[in-house]
Amino acid sequence: MLYSDDSFALHTDLYQINMIYTYWQAGIDQQPVVFEAYFRNMPFNNGYVIFAGLAHIVQYFEGLHFSLTDIAYLRSLNLYNEDFLAYLQKWRLTATLRAPYEGEVMFDHEPLLQIEGPLVDAQLLETALLNIINFQTLIATKAARVVTAANGDPLMEFGTRRAQEFDAALWGTRAAYIGGFNATSNVRAGKLFNLPVSGTHAHALVQAYQNDYDAFTAYAKSHHDVVFLVDTFDTLKSGIPAAIRVAKKFGNKINFQGIRIDSGDMVLLSRKIRQLLDEAGFPNAKIFASNDLDEYVISDLKARGAKIDVWGVGTKIITAYDQPALGAVYKMVSIAGKNTIKLSDDMTKISTPGKKQIWRTNGGDVLTFATEISAGQPLLHDIFVMGRQVYNTPTVQAVQAYAKNSLSKLPNRFKRLEHPDHYAITLSQQLADAKAATIADIQLKIKEN
Amino acid sequence: MLYSDDSFALHTDLYQINMIYTYWQAGIDQQPVVFEAYFRNMPFNNGYVIFAGLAHIVQYFEGLHFSLTDIAYLRSLNLYNEDFLAYLQKWRLTATLRAPYEGEVMFDHEPLLQIEGPLVDAQLLETALLNIINFQTLIATKAARVVTAANGDPLMEFGTRRAQEFDAALWGTRAAYIGGFNATSNVRAGKLFNLPVSGTHAHALVQAYQNDYDAFTAYAKSHHDVVFLVDTFDTLKSGIPAAIRVAKKFGNKINFQGIRIDSGDMVLLSRKIRQLLDEAGFPNAKIFASNDLDEYVISDLKARGAKIDVWGVGTKIITAYDQPALGAVYKMVSIAGKNTIKLSDDMTKISTPGKKQIWRTNGGDVLTFATEISAGQPLLHDIFVMGRQVYNTPTVQAVQAYAKNSLSKLPNRFKRLEHPDHYAITLSQQLADAKAATIADIQLKIKEN
Repeated sequence: MLYSDDSFALHTDLYQINMIYTYWQAGIDQQPVVFEAYFRNMPFNNGYVIFAGLAHIVQYFEGLHFSLTDIAYLRSLNLYNEDFLAYLQKWRLTATLRAPYEGEVMFDHEPLLQIEGPLVDAQLLETALLNIINFQTLIATKAARVVTAANGDPLMEFGTRRAQEFDAALWGTRAAYIGGFNATSNVRAGKLFNLPVSGTHAHALVQAYQNDYDAFTAYAKSHHDVVFLVDTFDTLKSGIPAAIRVAKKFGNKINFQGIRIDSGDMVLLSRKIRQLLDEAGFPNAKIFASNDLDEYVISDLKARGAKIDVWGVGTKIITAYDQPALGAVYKMVSIAGKNTIKLSDDMTKISTPGKKQIWRTNGGDVLTFATEISAGQPLLHDIFVMGRQVYNTPTVQAVQAYAKNSLSKLPNRFKRLEHPDHYAITLSQQLADAKAATIADIQLKIKEN
Repeated sequence: MLYSDDSFALHTDLYQINMIYTYWQAGIDQQPVVFEAYFRNMPFNNGYVIFAGLAHIVQYFEGLHFSLTDIAYLRSLNLYNEDFLAYLQKWRLTATLRAPYEGEVMFDHEPLLQIEGPLVDAQLLETALLNIINFQTLIATKAARVVTAANGDPLMEFGTRRAQEFDAALWGTRAAYIGGFNATSNVRAGKLFNLPVSGTHAHALVQAYQNDYDAFTAYAKSHHDVVFLVDTFDTLKSGIPAAIRVAKKFGNKINFQGIRIDSGDMVLLSRKIRQLLDEAGFPNAKIFASNDLDEYVISDLKARGAKIDVWGVGTKIITAYDQPALGAVYKMVSIAGKNTIKLSDDMTKISTPGKKQIWRTNGGDVLTFATEISAGQPLLHDIFVMGRQVYNTPTVQAVQAYAKNSLSKLPNRFKRLEHPDHYAITLSQQLADAKAATIADIQLKIKEN
């Protein structure tokens, strides 16, 4: 490492600092603005998303400032003058952040984050905020889809080895839990977030003993709860007979939870294994399955009569394999008390002006100006007020319960894995009028330019 | 946070700790083993990969140990006895790690990492090692493909906001640089890795001033090097005329590097913009383009005559969008001096036994036992020897140069973006014989079970 410390103030795009330099020189860095983050297209063509990321945002905001080495690095770029570097060094967060609670069911074009404060804050924070919520919301949503497919069966996340580096494994498995997963294999995530951890052994254990029976015996000697991985050599000829022999030998000394398969024809194998376990007197032993599972494979295996009780999901959940990025953007909606908009040739990309509130009603969501009162429950809550944290991160169990409750209120037609209905989002009359007026106003300016 | 510190010893799967517990109880935790990591399928159907991740592995290994809170957390799981927790607390890395140099061109079924040491080390490290090299090798490889498509044009990585959390943005952009990118937007990556940083302004600047001309003027007043983003309102009617007016007004006071477009018909727009810039007397002003670019879009835009000079690539590179995971696995190849193998019903999944070396020759790569001598250059080098670092992480510039040199020796037929030839990898006679013998030996054991 070239510098002695690493702080997150520089976890931003260079152009943010460059814009702040311009604002500061022009004396508008403290101008009050509102920015909102939202996405335009539902990930996985899903009918909703599960909002996630607040816990990391809270951690990112804590003590956020430019360290001495950050300033030294910025100086080395020869882009900024010393007064500006001194200004950055003194900078502290004074913005207000509003967001839905973590675990809330949300929809396209709804603000997921609302930053209100000085222009400098809004600009500096954009990159990291999007980095966090884009990923975590994506994974929580993907997880909720897998939960739908598993239809009540327990789900374990164990994709760390295929995750996109450490943070993705850590925050991704937390997001999967929020979306309804039951446990993680990542011990660090278990420690940091109090997530249930799960896992027994890999093929390597069987290789170390060179045969299933000795490996299972050694494992049973050292563990009370056991799940034997039976497909290292030959599932039906070697793995299952060995598992049954060991389970019988140890009897009540162990809790024989079941076996895991990680390859082969899952339907055929699981049905045969179920029969063998039942015949051997282990009707309560569960069949765990893994191997490139996702919501589609799980749905298919269940439809074709696989006798699988517990699902281990890795790569496909932790990377959101079929759509590995959520495209949330972050747009200025108000500056110096005046509504603004990002125009675009593409009408669907035109943003809605003004600081907003979202109201959830039985008939759908209503977007209004924050100053309006509407029927329904408001979804944007104060998280930080003028730089001060006013929100306490709940336990991840509480967040998972919140997501489950929020989802339970959503009619099933929006929860179909394929071709869900599109949830109704309406603009208040004031907002619709303002949007039309702002577009007209700005188009006039283009002509005048 | 529930614990006062976060260490990386627990960045592993629970089953690793569970297996170590069994090995320790059985007294085989110190048995000498060799594990190797390799992948079976080329990502993106590419003809090669660029190996990356060593710098993070070195950082992960530094001072790796179970902290007091790690032990306290493991105790809370009620899975392990106190003697074992004391054993873990005393554990320190004593394994040897061999790998290709970062930036090396590598192929499927070749060892990317080789861990030799006590069984406990090999098992504990697996998850984090795969987590690191799977992601970074993937991104460096994707980057090399984009570099091929750009055919000499500069490439900037600016996908942080769409990356899968902080580490993916940070290490991903370093990997993209190794693969041949020229700069990053991520300031923290610039600081930590001495990467060139790049970026000027976003649409928000133009919104803050409500028109292009005032925004560009303010930017030009505060920066010497300027690239104006011209598509906030209307590229040809407003953005480009304003950019030209400002460039003319400031003259030599600024370095007008060019303009950036982020939407619209890139072929049509860039050609028209090129004409307008040339006519205005700015033939050296460059056209920067961004907007969901990848190797396919860049190839297509170039083929259709787009006049784009510099490419900004975000989401598609930083997530390896079309294949967001590399599937490297980690298999025991030797235990207590005896070759071993992971059998499988699927013949392509059967691993090759024994501690190996890779030799690069003009006719392809040769895999041998590490004890053999072959023609060619050996690719696996000592990185850590018995827990002690013997490799100094080169500058990222040196790693990029190494990758470029390594790629330059690879014939073009392996570098085609689509349908590249498959590189020849042969096993030495000793290795081929040993593989056959090991398979026969283990199949015999299955029958005996």
